[in-house]
Amino acid sequence: MVVTETETGAQAETTRAHGVWAPALTPLDADLVPDAARFAAHLRWLLDNGCHGVAVFGTTGEATSFSADERMALLDAALAAGIPPGRLMIGTGCCALTDTLRLTRHAVEAGCNRVLMLPPFYYKGMSDEGLFASYAEVIERLGRADLELFLYHFPRLSGVPITPGLVERMCAAYPEVVHGVKDSSGDAASTADFIARFPDLAIFPGTEMLLLAGLEQGGVGCITASANVNAPAVRRVYDAWRSDSGEAAALQETISAHRVALQSQPLIPALKRLVARERDDPAWLIMRPPLSPMNETAVAEQDAALAAAGFVFGA
Amino acid sequence: MVVTETETGAQAETTRAHGVWAPALTPLDADLVPDAARFAAHLRWLLDNGCHGVAVFGTTGEATSFSADERMALLDAALAAGIPPGRLMIGTGCCALTDTLRLTRHAVEAGCNRVLMLPPFYYKGMSDEGLFASYAEVIERLGRADLELFLYHFPRLSGVPITPGLVERMCAAYPEVVHGVKDSSGDAASTADFIARFPDLAIFPGTEMLLLAGLEQGGVGCITASANVNAPAVRRVYDAWRSDSGEAAALQETISAHRVALQSQPLIPALKRLVARERDDPAWLIMRPPLSPMNETAVAEQDAALAAAGFVFGA
Repeated sequence: MVVTETETGAQAETTRAHGVWAPALTPLDADLVPDAARFAAHLRWLLDNGCHGVAVFGTTGEATSFSADERMALLDAALAAGIPPGRLMIGTGCCALTDTLRLTRHAVEAGCNRVLMLPPFYYKGMSDEGLFASYAEVIERLGRADLELFLYHFPRLSGVPITPGLVERMCAAYPEVVHGVKDSSGDAASTADFIARFPDLAIFPGTEMLLLAGLEQGGVGCITASANVNAPAVRRVYDAWRSDSGEAAALQETISAHRVALQSQPLIPALKRLVARERDDPAWLIMRPPLSPMNETAVAEQDAALAAAGFVFGA
Repeated sequence: MVVTETETGAQAETTRAHGVWAPALTPLDADLVPDAARFAAHLRWLLDNGCHGVAVFGTTGEATSFSADERMALLDAALAAGIPPGRLMIGTGCCALTDTLRLTRHAVEAGCNRVLMLPPFYYKGMSDEGLFASYAEVIERLGRADLELFLYHFPRLSGVPITPGLVERMCAAYPEVVHGVKDSSGDAASTADFIARFPDLAIFPGTEMLLLAGLEQGGVGCITASANVNAPAVRRVYDAWRSDSGEAAALQETISAHRVALQSQPLIPALKRLVARERDDPAWLIMRPPLSPMNETAVAEQDAALAAAGFVFGA
C-alpha cells in the first residue's frame, strides 16, 4: 500500500492510517467525571495543530479507568461536537469480551471504523490461541468487514504481549480487518521486527523517539502521548521525512530530547499538568486514581529538563 | 477477635469471615454467557460440601472476563435461587472506579457485605497513595459502614501488589471497613508477614498449601480455587486444626499433594474439566477466551498425577 494523497493535515478518511496521532488525554471534572466539552475542544486543538488523527481511549486517555458507558457517552459527545469520526481511532479493548464487543460495535456504528484493541489483560501467560480466540470472538460477533483493527502491544502495562505469531494468525484469518499494530514496547528492535514481518500493515511505534527510524524502515508514523503537548514538532519530523528536505534527522533529535524530558516523570500526570498550565485551567490537573498528581519538586525538576531540551508547548 | 461459634458448616452470618472458601467457577452456555442455574447449583453444592463460604467473581470465576452487568445479573440470580448472601464474598475490583463502585454498591445492597476488591490493575507501578485513593473513593462514595472489605493481593496476575504499607494506611483510615486480605501471592513469607503485622484482620492465603501454616500463625483459613473440587478434604484440615485432633499435619500433606497435581496444569481449565467429568456435563468445559481448554495429552498427564496423589473429586 502506498500513501498518495497530498498531506494537508486534512487526511482523506478513506486512506490508510498514517502520520502523527495523539492518544488524547481525558479531562475530568471535580467529581472525576469525563468533561465532554473540554475533551472535544482538546481533540479539535490536536487535529488543528499537527495531528493526522487522534486515538481516544488509549493508555494516555486513562481509558481503563472509565466504564464502558462513560467511554461511549464521551465519544458520542465528541462526535456531536463535530469531531470527524474518520480522524479518530477508538480504544475498545477491555478484559471482558462483552465490554470489548460493545465498545467496538458502538465505535463502528458511530462511523469510527478504526479501533485500537488491547487484548484481555487480566490473565497473564495466555497462549496465542487464547488471545486469537478473544479477538476472533469480537470480530465474528461484530460481523463488520469495514472494521479496521489495530492490535495494541503494550506489554509493560497490559502484561499480555501481541506476538508476531499472533499477528500472523490474525492476518491469515481476517486479512480485511487487521490493519495495523501500535507497538508501545518502546523497543526499536520490536518495532523494526513488526515492520519487516508485516509490510502490508500500518505499524505505529508508541513513541516519537522511534518515528524517523520507523518511517525509514517502512512504518507509517507514530501514536504518541507527547503529541498532546508537542504535535507540531513531531509533525515536522514526519513532513520533513516525506518531503525529503534533509532536515528530518535534526528535527528528530529535537523531539527525542523533548521526549526524554517529558518522560522523566510519569507521563500522564506530566502531560495533564502541562496542558493545565498552558490553558490556565486547573481542571486539567484532575486524574482518576490510581494515577497521582506530581508534587512541586517533580514539577520544578521537569520544568528545568524541558527548558534545557528547548521544549515549548504546542510549538 | 476470636471465633467462638460452634463449627457446624452453617456459619452464623454475623461472625468474622474464616474457614474454607471456594472462589467459585463460573459455568457458561454455548454462547459464553454465564449460566445462572448451573452457577447457583454449584454454589449450593460448595456450601453443602465443606465450604464455610463462597467467593464469587474472583480470578477462578473469570470475573474480569464479564461485564459489570453480567456480574450483577449472575449474583442476583444466585440470590434469587436461595444462596444465602451472608455466606458469600463478592469480587468487585475493576480497573474503572465507576465499575468497582457500581458492583460494590450492588453487592452490599443485596446483603453481601463482604467484598473482595482487586486494586485497579491496568496501570503498573502506582504509588500506595494512588492505590489508597482508589479504594478510598469507592468507600467514601459508597458510604456504608457495614461494608466488609477484603483487599485482594494477587501480584502475578494483577501486577499491582497490595503492600503492607497500603494495608496500614487503609486500616488507619477505615478501621471499621477493612476486614482482611486475600494473599494470592502463593508466598508463605508474604502470608506470614500479613498475619504478623495485622492480627486484627482476617488473612486468607489464596492456596490451601498454606492453610495449616497460616492457621498456626494466626490466619483464618484459605480461599482456594481447589475447593471447587476438593473442599471436603481441605475442610478436614481446618477442622482437625480447630479440634486439635493431631491429624492436621498429615491431612495437610494430602491436600498439598492434591494441589500440586491440580496446578500441574493451568488451574481454571483443569478445574472446569474436572467438574464437567464429575457431573457428566460438558457445558462445564466452556470458558471465555483468553482461557483455553486443555488438550488430551495434558488431561492424561494430569489425571495420572491426580491419581498418584490420591485425589478423589469432592471426597
